[in-house]
This record gives sequence, C-alpha cells and structure tokens, in this order.
Amino acid sequence: MNTFKNRYDVIVVGAGHAGCEAALAAARMGCDTLLLTIDMDKIAAMPCSPSIGGTAKGQLVKEIDALGGWMAKVSDSSAIQYRTLNTRKGPAVQSTRTQNDKNMYSQNMKHVLEKADNLDLKQAMVESLIIENNEIKGITDNTGFEYVSSCVVITTGTFLRGTVHIGSSRIQAGRAGEFASTGLALSLEAMKLEMGRMKTGTPPRLHADSIDFSKFNVHGSDEVIKPFSFSTTKVTNPMLPSFMGQTNPDTHALIRNNLKYSALYGGQIKGQSARYCPSFEDKVVKFPDRDSHHVILEYEGIDSKEIYASGLGNSLPLGIQYQVVRSVKGLEQAQIMRAAYAIEYDYVSPLELTPALETKKIKGLFLAGQINGTSGYEEAGAQGLWAGANAAAKILGRPPFILDRSQAYMGVMVDDLVTRGTKEPYRMFTSRAEYRLLLREDNADLRLARIGYEYGLTSKAHWDEVSRIKTATEKELERINRIVIKPSDETNAFLTGHNSNPIDTGVPLTQLLKRAELSYDLLKQIAPVPEPVQDRAARQVEIEIKYEGYIRRQYNEIKKFEDLERIKIPLEFSFDAAHGLSNEIREKLNRICPASLGQASRIDGMTPAAISVLMVAISAFRQNRSN
Amino acid sequence: MNTFKNRYDVIVVGAGHAGCEAALAAARMGCDTLLLTIDMDKIAAMPCSPSIGGTAKGQLVKEIDALGGWMAKVSDSSAIQYRTLNTRKGPAVQSTRTQNDKNMYSQNMKHVLEKADNLDLKQAMVESLIIENNEIKGITDNTGFEYVSSCVVITTGTFLRGTVHIGSSRIQAGRAGEFASTGLALSLEAMKLEMGRMKTGTPPRLHADSIDFSKFNVHGSDEVIKPFSFSTTKVTNPMLPSFMGQTNPDTHALIRNNLKYSALYGGQIKGQSARYCPSFEDKVVKFPDRDSHHVILEYEGIDSKEIYASGLGNSLPLGIQYQVVRSVKGLEQAQIMRAAYAIEYDYVSPLELTPALETKKIKGLFLAGQINGTSGYEEAGAQGLWAGANAAAKILGRPPFILDRSQAYMGVMVDDLVTRGTKEPYRMFTSRAEYRLLLREDNADLRLARIGYEYGLTSKAHWDEVSRIKTATEKELERINRIVIKPSDETNAFLTGHNSNPIDTGVPLTQLLKRAELSYDLLKQIAPVPEPVQDRAARQVEIEIKYEGYIRRQYNEIKKFEDLERIKIPLEFSFDAAHGLSNEIREKLNRICPASLGQASRIDGMTPAAISVLMVAISAFRQNRSN
Repeated sequence: MNTFKNRYDVIVVGAGHAGCEAALAAARMGCDTLLLTIDMDKIAAMPCSPSIGGTAKGQLVKEIDALGGWMAKVSDSSAIQYRTLNTRKGPAVQSTRTQNDKNMYSQNMKHVLEKADNLDLKQAMVESLIIENNEIKGITDNTGFEYVSSCVVITTGTFLRGTVHIGSSRIQAGRAGEFASTGLALSLEAMKLEMGRMKTGTPPRLHADSIDFSKFNVHGSDEVIKPFSFSTTKVTNPMLPSFMGQTNPDTHALIRNNLKYSALYGGQIKGQSARYCPSFEDKVVKFPDRDSHHVILEYEGIDSKEIYASGLGNSLPLGIQYQVVRSVKGLEQAQIMRAAYAIEYDYVSPLELTPALETKKIKGLFLAGQINGTSGYEEAGAQGLWAGANAAAKILGRPPFILDRSQAYMGVMVDDLVTRGTKEPYRMFTSRAEYRLLLREDNADLRLARIGYEYGLTSKAHWDEVSRIKTATEKELERINRIVIKPSDETNAFLTGHNSNPIDTGVPLTQLLKRAELSYDLLKQIAPVPEPVQDRAARQVEIEIKYEGYIRRQYNEIKKFEDLERIKIPLEFSFDAAHGLSNEIREKLNRICPASLGQASRIDGMTPAAISVLMVAISAFRQNRSN
Repeated sequence: MNTFKNRYDVIVVGAGHAGCEAALAAARMGCDTLLLTIDMDKIAAMPCSPSIGGTAKGQLVKEIDALGGWMAKVSDSSAIQYRTLNTRKGPAVQSTRTQNDKNMYSQNMKHVLEKADNLDLKQAMVESLIIENNEIKGITDNTGFEYVSSCVVITTGTFLRGTVHIGSSRIQAGRAGEFASTGLALSLEAMKLEMGRMKTGTPPRLHADSIDFSKFNVHGSDEVIKPFSFSTTKVTNPMLPSFMGQTNPDTHALIRNNLKYSALYGGQIKGQSARYCPSFEDKVVKFPDRDSHHVILEYEGIDSKEIYASGLGNSLPLGIQYQVVRSVKGLEQAQIMRAAYAIEYDYVSPLELTPALETKKIKGLFLAGQINGTSGYEEAGAQGLWAGANAAAKILGRPPFILDRSQAYMGVMVDDLVTRGTKEPYRMFTSRAEYRLLLREDNADLRLARIGYEYGLTSKAHWDEVSRIKTATEKELERINRIVIKPSDETNAFLTGHNSNPIDTGVPLTQLLKRAELSYDLLKQIAPVPEPVQDRAARQVEIEIKYEGYIRRQYNEIKKFEDLERIKIPLEFSFDAAHGLSNEIREKLNRICPASLGQASRIDGMTPAAISVLMVAISAFRQNRSN
C-alpha cells in the first residue's frame, strides 16, 4: 500500500501573487513544495486593477523575471495593453505597465503551477499552524488533515479576518464573495506577533455597453510592444484601449453630502488606509480645492464586458454608488456589475521579520505579501519570491537570499519593511530607491542573474545569455571609449542636422553620446560600428555613457553604504551594553534587532552619533570575544 | 440626476445552469431581466463532472437549444470531447455527451449573459425575499439594497444552507470554497414551504502527471463530431480522450474497513442521497457481491492538469481518500488536487409548485434547478428555461409556458416533479418518458420550434428554418411512399450484397427501408433521389419510416393521454365534494391540486376508479356552474 505524501520541504499558504512566486521559487531551487489555496479557481486573481507593473512596480516585475519568477511571463501571455511609462524621462524611471485579461492571467498562472517540477498544488483551507518550541512544524487544514514541514510561507493577502464594507453593511469575506480566514488569524495572534488592521478597497465594475465612451479620451496601447519578460519573444493577444474621463463638482458634492453613509467616513472602518491608493471619498475630503479627478476605464478581459472604473473606489451604499458613478460625464446610464467596496484585514507588523522575511519569534515561519502591510500585486510577487527563496535556502543550508538596497528594488522594499515597519499599506516608488539610476528595468537581469543562478532560481542557459550581453556591453564600451570624432563638414552637417552643436576639434564619441539630442543609433552614422552589436548591449552602452556622471556618483555612494552594511551586528551583541544611546533608540534597536550597522542606520530616528556609539561598541564586543 | 434602475420585470437569483437559462429566456421574451449571483467569476460553474449531456440529459439539452437556450451552444464552444451514446440502439435513446473545458464553459456563458439584450448581470448575495399578501415584491441583498420585481426565479443549487462534509468535518459552504446561502433559506422557510435536505457529492480531482495512464483504456472522441446545438456549424477546440479503469477488492476493503469515518455512513449526513449517482461508499455497501466498479478519468480543461476521477466520489477523511485512490491500478502515485466531498443542502418539495414552476403559496415566486430536488446541470438548465419563460409569460399576460409529457422531456420532468414530488435527487432517464420514441434528440427543434417562436424564445429565422426542414421531410415522405421497387438482377444483387433478402415481386421502397440492414443513404443506389434532400429531412424520413409501427402506436397513446389531459380541473372545484374517493387520495389531491385529470391520474396511488369518480364529479361541477 502506497502512503500519500504529507511531508514537504516548504509549504506555501495562499496562491495569490505572493504565494505563486513563493512556491515556484522554492520549487525551482529543488525543494519539495506544497502550495495550498482555498479555491483553485481563484489562483493569481486580480481582485482590483486589471494590470501589472507601473512606475517602480514594473521594476519589481522585471526583477522577479530576472530571478526566474513568472509574473512577467504570465503578464505577457495575458496582456491586452502595453505602455512604457515616463518615456520622456530618464531610463531610471521608465517602467512597463500591462493591462491584462484577468481570467487569462489566472488560468495561465494555474497552468504554470500545475506543470512545475517539485510543486504540488492543492485546494485546502489552512486552519492553524503547528508550532513546537517556537519552530514551525506544519499546518492543519479545516478538515483536520495535517501537512508537515519545517518551512511555511504564509501569503494570505486580505483574507485574515477580512471584512468587506459597503455602506453600513459588514460582511466577513476575504474578498467579495470569498471566505475570510479566521482560524489562521487566531493562530498568528496566539504567537504574540504584533498585528494590526489595514484597509484597502476597489472601484465598481461597469458594463461596457452602458458607457458612452465617446465622452472619454482614448488611450491606446504602445505602437511598439516591449514584452515584460526578458524571455518573451512574441505577444499574441489583441490590444485594447483604455479611456480617460473626469469627475466633476456634482460628483464631489454627492460624496460630501453622503460622507456619513460611507463605511470609511461613517466610522465603520478602523484599519489604516493606503495613502497612495486613496478611495474617491478620500480624495474628495483630502483635496477640497479640487473639483475634478481622473476616472480611467479599463477592460477586464478580451471578451469581457466588465469595465474597471479606476478612480471611483468607495465604500458607499450601492444606491449612492450609482448616483456618484452616474454623475460622471459618459457614465449617465452606467450599470454597476460589481459594487465598489472597502475591505479591512489583519496584517503582521513587518518589524516582526528578519531580512529573510522569516518571523523572529517562530523559526521557519515566513510571511509575504499583504500580510506584511504592503499593497500591490507586484510588491506581493516580489516578497513571495524572496520568502520562497529564503525558505528553500534554509532547507538547503544556504545563507539567506538577501539583496541589498543597491542591488534591487526588492532589496529596498524588504529593508524598508523590516527596518522601518509600516503603518499604512506600503507601496513601491522610485523615490524610495536611493540608487534608482542603477536599479533600472533594462538591467534587472544583468543585475540579478548571478545571484539567481547561484541560488538555483534561474538556469545555466539564462546565466550564459546574460553573460553574453555583459561581455558584449563591455567590449562595445571599450571600443567606443577609444573613438575620437574629428571635425569635418560631413560630421558637422550631421550634427547641426540633428540640432546639435558642430565640433571644431576632435571630440571623444562618448562625449557626443552624452548630448541629449544624440543617440547611440544616430551616432552609428558618423562612427560606423564594425560588427553588429546586440540590441540589449547597445542600450546598456548608451545608458552607461549618457548617465556616466550620475552613475559614478551612485556607485560612490554605494561604496559608503556597503562599508556600513558590511559591519554586521553579532546576534549575541546586547544593545543595552552600548553606553550613550537614548532610551528610545535602544528600545527600537532591541525590537528590530538590525543585522548590520547599515540597517541600524536606517531605523526611524537613528542619529549619526548613535551610529558612532554602536560602531565602537560592536568593535569592542568583537575584540572581547576574540580575546 | 439620473436615477439607477432597481425595478425589473423578472429577477433571477443564482447564475448556475438553471439561473443562466432562466434569465436568458425571460430576456429573449423581451422582459427587463436582472440576474444576480454571489460570485461573477463562477457563472455556469461545473462543480462536478466536466460534461454536458448523456442519456436522456442530451435530449434535455437539445430541447433547451430548440427553445433558443444556450447550454448546447456554450457546450459546443467549450467541448473537448464528443460522444453519441447508444449508437447501436434505436434513435430514441441516442444521446449526445460532451466533455468540456470548465473554465471555458463558464467564461463563454458569462460572455453570452453580458451581451444579451434586456439582461443585467450583477454580483450580489440575496439575503431575503420581499413578500406582501403572498405575492413576491422583490429581494434584498446582503448590503440592504433592494431590487423590485413581481416575478422572482430562485435557482440556488446546493447553496441553501449548504454543508460540505469530508470525514467528520462539516463546513458551511455552498460548494467547496464558496459561501452558503443562509438568509434566503430562512426566507423560504418563513413562507411555510415544505423543505427538506438532500445530499450529493463529487469525486476527487487528481493531477494528470501523477497518473499512470497506460494502466487505463483510452476512450477517444467520436471521429465524426456532431455538434450539440442545431445552430453550431463548426467545432474548433482540440479533442481529448478519457480513460477507463477499475476499482478492485483492495479498494472495496478499504471502504468497508473505514465506513465509520465516512460522513455518509458515519451518521453525519441526514439528507437523501441520489440513488442514480451514488458515491463510491454507496456502491460498495449496496452491491456487496461486486469487487470492481468503473473509474473514468476525464480532463477538466484543455491546458488543465486536473483530472476528474469519476466513480471515486466519497465523503471520507483526506488520508483515507488517498488510500482508496491509490489502491486503484494506475493511481498508485496519484496526487489529489481537490478532495472528494459530500454536500447537504435544503430543497423545496416540488409539490409546492404549479406546472409553471411557480410556488402555489407565493405568487410570482418561481423555483428552478436543484432547489426543486433535482440533480444534473441539464435538468437544472431545462427547469431554468421553463421557469424563466413562465415568469416572463406572467409579466406579458400570456398563458403559462407548459409542455406536456408527449411534447418534451422537459414536460415529463416538470410533470413528474409537480405531480409526484421527489424524495431523492431527481434525474432524467429515457425510461421516465412514455413517448420517448417521439421525444428524440434529432427532432427536438422540429417538436418545439412552433411554441418557442410563439413565446418569443426563438427567432423568425429559426422558425423558417425548421419549417423548411418539415416541408422537405413531408415532401420526401410523400415521394418515397409512392415508389415501388421492382425485382431485377441488379436490385437483388444490391440487396444480397448488403445481407438483405432478394425480392421477387414489386415491393414498396418504404418496406425495404424498414429493414434494419438498409438505410436511406444505401437505398439511393437502387432508387435515385431526383433532387438533393436536406440531411436533416432525410434523417427524419428514415426514422419515421423505419419506426413507423412504434411511432403510430405512441401517437395513439398520446391521443388517449390528451383526452384526459384536456379535462381541466377548475380551480374552484373541491375534491372534498367528490364522493367515493379514499381519504388518502383526497388528501393528496388537495395537496397537489392537479390542473387536469391527466395530471391527477399520475399522482402516486391514484386508481382508475378514482379517476372515474373525478371525471363524473368535474362534469357535474361544470354543469352546475353553467346552469
């Protein structure tokens, strides 16, 4: 008689964007992985916006892709619109954003999971965690069935004691129409993890045929589609437009007059809202001078009539939602197919986590995604990959998988979370990344290929491919650095023809390339390239030369940053022994337990003086120990 | 300021197979219709078998199609296998069965609903019914929002106080992972409708890659695909096989030894099980002599790795489910992706309903599908169309939409339900239809086109098309009836060449066509057809001639049946006034209130003597009234 398998290296709870990447990462690294989800028909669901990427988020997606994750590839297979944002700005802030067919995204991700080696996908609702001596031992589902594992990744999104609010009605649900997870919330609470409530929400979905699209501005897909994933060679779906409109004084008056019926402003909701993704009520209240905000209409699928009405999120009763929606020009006859709603849910303070996203209190218990107080599919996916890789690293006896702030947006996000915590849903922004000029979409694979390959997250073939691009870039940089353009009539005609000043002495080609009006491609005309250069390498060469000054400065900063980062704080070091720290700072250090002086320096309220104190105390501690 | 619409002619609650057809039927008839569902991502879900049709069920689907319904068309658009069952038997019992991609079926039906005229599709959970003076006035959703209507069709499937059982665990759920509907159940109970509990269940879903398919017999799709819908001209999906295997004595011993852990046999489940769709535990217990039952493996989708393991349905704890599954040859390493489970739910006794599927106690309240104690997607779809058409007929002031037992399987089913009630999940069988030789798949549109067109369920174009087939059939019948085949060497060579006796005198062509070994197509060779005959007409001609004797007998029976059916029982007629009825029969008549003597004659325990008594009493009542 065969016995069934209920022991796994890694168990991942929840198959949203975090859970999928977590399970796939652990499985890629060779761990026997189990992914459990309440409803296998809702895998990688997009309960809010039908899109992936956007400013800073696109960078996260490219990083996931560079590390062998699936978000970018699945996005390419389900995209119905591509846009590169900020094309007029520098490469640091250019980001990819797709609009996606939601059902296709979910189905395609499910197929990826089903086909993955080392990965079992099963439908089950996890009811409790099995913990012994502060170590995770496994989980129990709601039928009493146990799965055993020494590494568990929890990715519950908005499901932990989720409460959906529409006006004064409160419905226990993880998302509209889905079970909330209560048992698991109690299980986490019992471990004395610091928990809180957050709030997010989603706008109404309207029926396409009830909308007068002629009253909106049409935004089409980019003419030249740049796939999200480095490995996607072809995009086959038809592309669909989106539509831009505005709210007006009537809309705003309706909100103001009905605020008391809003769950958010009527006092129903206690959880902390996302400042960066405010509901429409929030916008009207917080910006009283504005009498218009954007409304963007987006298709939820190729054949779907459901339209996502971005900008109109609220927690009002349905009757008032209708009035608000119908006050917008073009939406006078709109039919609401799904009501907008707000949702409150439990999160765990990310200060409870190590930089590996493992809880400090329970060994082997990892948390990723909204449960850590973040918002966004991309933030969730990146944490999922990170937590899954760390769970696997723990099983395999490797050092934690950690990227620092100079290596990746992921590193910035995790460092922010575990060092500073968050009181409101955390969202990725380019401004959070000090080294954003280096953390570009275009070089995500170049930045991360080595560590991805070393950890078994990506293949040898991928590493070879990236190495080829790197070598070609270096070779071309070397070549181009040697070239000096001499003045000639022809050259100066070319320059003036492109609104660029003529030259009267020999000028290094790199200097011309630094001019904003000249590109690598253009300059080929006056300095022909002897042999073809790979597109990816050419683009790297161009950016490295054009932004050389800025890039050099960031590298210098990183050097300083790394000096502090390299000073690790030994686990046994007692902050109480470091004389000269304020009580407030000592309390924070004891709570957060930074792993390095670098991390300590980023704690809220930390001073240069305190860092000096610590540096001395750590050095003394080391010396004492080695004596 | 525009006000939103919350008044509809017809409101349908639930978007399963019954709800979709109900809403679409009412909308086709021109009624302003609202369809509400708890989760718009689960429309027309197939929570059990990934297939549509089968013996007798295929006939229902063809009838739905003939009346403009969508089940057959959506099935064609999502089918991954076609089989015509019973091809070696007569045309009466031949039925179409498709295997379907579940996600595609659901998505395609959703698109049909979204695009339908007169139909609004919205996500909402109905909490209660608004009733005044025993008339329905509308519904209230779980946020307190009201929709007003004088006709409401309830199609709640297994959601009314649904309880999922796996071993000793009991989970309140409408299906695995979905909310049960409690408020609505209380609402129906408060109306004093007679309600009961039923039980059904579903087998486990296995991962394809964990199965050794070489241990199973492969069953492919039919080589020539006959689409389900009369209007489908092309099927584009790839076709997939299914796989047949067996349980064995080990499997059966496992069930017997663990019966006490089964929800069904451990005493957890009180609801009445489906006799015709037994769980595996049921089969083992009820057929102790058999040591093997079929296990059929079917793909749940084109790209899906989920395999439906038909025959292995049970309500055992997951650990034992694994042992049972893995005892089957070829499933030794099987991974269970979704556990088998049993589900109990509330139903309303269909004796509470008029032949229009309207509750007798609450005017304007219609019930369709599993809530009426039936099982099966097809039974649900047919009732949905029926109830939707009747709700619309009521709004439009037309007589109820009722087909009798001689017109359609639907008529048989509804008559069975409202006349005899049901204590176990009711399933359609060909044996339930007295006139099954007339109620064939091949003539469903010919039978039902007129009434469908008259009620506005189908278009003029459809009616014209059917009329053309009918005319062509009659013309060809007339022609063929006149032809006599004379004996000749050539003719006799043809006959003996087809294993048919030679002739020695002139023989009518129709007589040759009656021979089992000769077909219409074959006989063209000795009696050429002067002008091409439409395939559909040729097929009708062939069946009508081949089965002429049987068909004539059934028509004669129908005449007698119609005589009784035509004797309507006036609403004011009191069964207490009919002397000579037993108390038992009188009690049943008072409870069921049959609409005709025909319906009365089919009540359980009714005798010919009692029918005579009634006939006399009704006649006397009529005479008295007209005097």
